[in-house]
Amino acid sequence: MPSRTGPPPAAPALRPREDHGPTDRIALSAATGRGAHLRTEDVHAWLAERRRAHAFHVERIPFAELDEWRFEDGTGNLMHRSGRFFTVEGMHVVEHDGPRGDGPRREWQQPVISQPEVGILGILAKEFDGVLHFLMQAKMEPGNPNLLQLSPTVQATRSNYTKAHRGTDVKLIDHFVRPDPDRVLVDVLQSEQGSWFFRKSNRNMIVETEDEIPAQDDFRWLTLGQIAALLHEDDLVNMNARTVLSCVPYRDTAPGALLSDIQLLSWFTGERSRRDVRARRVPLASVHGWKHGTEAIEREDGRYFKVVAVSVRAGNREVVRWTQPLIEPVGLGVTAFLVREVDGVPHVLVQARAEGGLLDTVELAPTVQCTPGNHAHLPAADRPPFLDAVLGAPASRIRYEAVHSEEGGRFLNARSRYLLVTADPDGAALDPPSGYTWATPAQLSTLTRHGHYLNVESRTLLACLNAMTATPPREGI
Amino acid sequence: MPSRTGPPPAAPALRPREDHGPTDRIALSAATGRGAHLRTEDVHAWLAERRRAHAFHVERIPFAELDEWRFEDGTGNLMHRSGRFFTVEGMHVVEHDGPRGDGPRREWQQPVISQPEVGILGILAKEFDGVLHFLMQAKMEPGNPNLLQLSPTVQATRSNYTKAHRGTDVKLIDHFVRPDPDRVLVDVLQSEQGSWFFRKSNRNMIVETEDEIPAQDDFRWLTLGQIAALLHEDDLVNMNARTVLSCVPYRDTAPGALLSDIQLLSWFTGERSRRDVRARRVPLASVHGWKHGTEAIEREDGRYFKVVAVSVRAGNREVVRWTQPLIEPVGLGVTAFLVREVDGVPHVLVQARAEGGLLDTVELAPTVQCTPGNHAHLPAADRPPFLDAVLGAPASRIRYEAVHSEEGGRFLNARSRYLLVTADPDGAALDPPSGYTWATPAQLSTLTRHGHYLNVESRTLLACLNAMTATPPREGI
Repeated sequence: MPSRTGPPPAAPALRPREDHGPTDRIALSAATGRGAHLRTEDVHAWLAERRRAHAFHVERIPFAELDEWRFEDGTGNLMHRSGRFFTVEGMHVVEHDGPRGDGPRREWQQPVISQPEVGILGILAKEFDGVLHFLMQAKMEPGNPNLLQLSPTVQATRSNYTKAHRGTDVKLIDHFVRPDPDRVLVDVLQSEQGSWFFRKSNRNMIVETEDEIPAQDDFRWLTLGQIAALLHEDDLVNMNARTVLSCVPYRDTAPGALLSDIQLLSWFTGERSRRDVRARRVPLASVHGWKHGTEAIEREDGRYFKVVAVSVRAGNREVVRWTQPLIEPVGLGVTAFLVREVDGVPHVLVQARAEGGLLDTVELAPTVQCTPGNHAHLPAADRPPFLDAVLGAPASRIRYEAVHSEEGGRFLNARSRYLLVTADPDGAALDPPSGYTWATPAQLSTLTRHGHYLNVESRTLLACLNAMTATPPREGI
Repeated sequence: MPSRTGPPPAAPALRPREDHGPTDRIALSAATGRGAHLRTEDVHAWLAERRRAHAFHVERIPFAELDEWRFEDGTGNLMHRSGRFFTVEGMHVVEHDGPRGDGPRREWQQPVISQPEVGILGILAKEFDGVLHFLMQAKMEPGNPNLLQLSPTVQATRSNYTKAHRGTDVKLIDHFVRPDPDRVLVDVLQSEQGSWFFRKSNRNMIVETEDEIPAQDDFRWLTLGQIAALLHEDDLVNMNARTVLSCVPYRDTAPGALLSDIQLLSWFTGERSRRDVRARRVPLASVHGWKHGTEAIEREDGRYFKVVAVSVRAGNREVVRWTQPLIEPVGLGVTAFLVREVDGVPHVLVQARAEGGLLDTVELAPTVQCTPGNHAHLPAADRPPFLDAVLGAPASRIRYEAVHSEEGGRFLNARSRYLLVTADPDGAALDPPSGYTWATPAQLSTLTRHGHYLNVESRTLLACLNAMTATPPREGI
C-alpha cells in the first residue's frame, strides 16, 4: 500500500491491479488468537457489562400502540410517519416454469420489507503490534434474543449518514462515507434476505486507518482470529458483522477446484437464465392468504413468519424509546453446506436459489436453507433437497454448528442453526441435481468481491468456513 | 482444456481455477488477419450477395396496419396478440438527490420496451489450421439502415429456443442451450440499452466445438483479426456481435493501472450507493409529455425517440412477412471514450451512468454517450460533460471512428458515431469530476466476466478498443 510509506506521488503512477499486501496481513490477523486489547475469553464479560450498563427493555405491543407507525390508508402498508426507515408492503411473486425450469408455474403473495436506500455496514481496521485488529461494537438490536451482539463498527442507513447527527458514531462513519482509496480492504454492495426484503442491499466495507481512535465502552479491537473463535458461539456475532467478514479477501492456496472459475460462472449464468422469477410490490392490504390481527399479520396456516410490533427502551441509542414493527419467523431455521474434499481441497454444495425479493432472480445459497417446520406436513419427496441428509447426519459428520441470529433491527428471534456437514460419500450429493454444484470456499470468496452472487445466508456460512480454516480446531468441535 | 485430449476422467479431479489456454488461442486468432475460408476483403461481396438473395423489404406503416400487435385496452400498452416477443409500455423514473448525489430531484416518464425473457446471443468457435474462427451470420434486422449486418451465430429469444422450431438455427442453438462446460469461452448475462429497455439482459456466449458444421450461405467462419478489421467499417458488425466480442477474454500484459482493481470496484460501489434511481413501469397511455399519433408516439418537443411501426418482407426468416413496432431515435448519437496513456498504458475515462431501465442503478458507460441534438438548446454548461471536448477534437486526436447501429430487431436507424479520442493533456479530464474515473481496457475486460458492470455502449467501445490493439493500424486510420 503506497500510502503507508508516505503521501501519494504528485504525478500519476501505475500500481499493480492486485495488491497481495492486504491478504498477507489478513492471514496474519486470522492466525492471531490473542488480541492486543481484550482477551477472547473476556469478550463475554465485556458484553455482559455493556448489557447491564444499558437498561435495554423490549416488549411486544399491539399495532395500535405503535407511536410513529401507521397503516397507510388504501394500501394498508405499514410505514413511519416521516416516510423514513422502512415500509412493510406486500409482494406478489410469479415463477414461470417452476423452480427447476420445467415444472409448473408457482405464484404467491406475502408481506415484505421495502427499504430502497443503501445502508453502510462498516468495520474499521487498524494495526496494533503489527497485527490488523477490527473495531467491533457491542450493539443492541431489539429483535436479537439476547438483545446485544457483536456488530460492525458502524451500521447506518443513508438517512443516518447524510443528515446532521450527534454522537460518536458520526465521527466513525466518516471513514466509510468518504473512504481513503488506499485503505479500502472491502467495499461491495451485497444483498440481504430475499425472502423478507424487497431488493435490499447494503454496502459492506472494511477500511483501515492510522488515526487515533478514542477508546469507548461499546467498542473493542479484535483480531480476525479472535472473531473466528467467537463465531463458534451461539447468538454472538451479528448478521451484519458476519456478512462484512465473509467479504474479507483470503488468498487461495489450494491447487484448484472441481470447476474452473469460468465453468462455475457459466453454470451460474445458465441457472439465472433459465429461472423466470418476477416479483412486484403490491399493497399490504391486498395480500392473499394472510390475516391481519391486532398484534400480528400472519398466514392463515401459521407458517413462515409474522409481522409484529415491539416497544424498545434503551440508553445508548439516538432516542431513548421507540416502537417499531419487526418480522418474526416461525421456528428455528436450518442453514447448511454439505462439504466434501476433492484431492484434499474442501468443496461446498451450493444452490442457485430463487427468492422473490432478490434483485436478479437467483443467488448462490447454502445446500439447505429453510425452516423445517414449514415443510413438516409434506411427504419426504417434496421436502427441500438434502434437508433430511443434514438433519440426519451423525455427530461425527458435523464439522461446524452454531445458532446465529439474523438482523435484529428488522427480525425478531430470527435464528437459524448454521451447519457444515460432511457429505455422505455414497449419497446423492456427489452427483448433484440440477440447480446445485460444488465450489470451493476460495471460489465463493472471490465472488464476494461482487454483488448479486452469494446470498446473505451463504455469506454467513462462508464467514464460518473461513473461521474454521483460520483457527485451529477447538476442543470438542 | 482436458476434454480436448479425451473424455473427462471418471473420478473427480481438480483443475486450475484459471486456464490460460483459451487466452493464448484467442490472442492467436486476434493476430490472424487472414481467415481459412473467406478473405476479409471478400466479406462485402458476400454480404451484398446475401442481400440480393433475400428479397428484403421494410416500410413504415401506421399503427393501424400492424397485423398481430394492438394497443391493449386500458393500459394502451403496445403488445403482440400472443403475449410473446416484447411490449412497449411506459416507464416512470425518479432520481432522488440528482445525478451528482447532491442536486435536485429529477423525474420523467417515457415509453420503454419490456421483454423480461433472457435471450441468447451465441457465437460458435472452431479451430481451422490451428486458429480459432468464429461463425458469423449475415442477418437481416428490419431496423438496420442497410438491413443486413454481421451477427452472432445465433440470436434467440427464450420462446425461440424452448419451443419446437424448424430450420438450421435450431441445430446451432443446441450448442448454447446445453453448452459443453469444457468448451465455454464466454458465458455471461449482460444488460442492453437502459434508456430504451426496461431491465433487459441477454446471455452472451462463445462456445467452441469440434463438430462438423455444414456450410450454409448465410454463415461464414472469421478470425478475431478479421472481425477486428471489419469493426472499422460503418454499419457492418451488429450490436449483438459487438457485445459478445467485448466479453472475449484477452490476457492483460500491462504492468498495472492508475487504480488497483479493488480501488476501481470501491469507486464503483460508492457511485452505485450514492445514486438513488427508482424506475417502475406505468401504462403507456398514462405517459406524460408524449403524444400518440397514427404513425408515431413521440415527445411533444420532438426529442429523444419515437415509437413507430414497420412492415417487413424477407425470405430467410421463420415467417415470410410480419409487422412490428420499433423505437426510432431522433438523430445520430455520439459515443466516445477519452483515452490517455499513463506510463505507456492506455486508460479510458469511464462514467458511472444511471439509466432508468438498468436493473441496478448505474453501470460503467463511455465518457460521452448522448445524441447531441437533444442538448443543442442548452447553454454549454448544461450540456453533457466532455461532449464539446469530443466534438471539437482535432482529427489528429481521433484514434478510432466508425458509425455502428444498435439492435435492428428493436431499433430503427439507431446509429451512433463510436469514437476513441485522445484526451487534451491540459483538459479537465485529467482530474475527472465526480462520477468519472480512469480505467484500463484490461480492467474493463475483466469486468465483462460479470453482469451489471459495463453498459452496452461501453461494451461496443471495448470491442473497438480490443480491435485496435489486436490489429495493426490500417492505412488512413
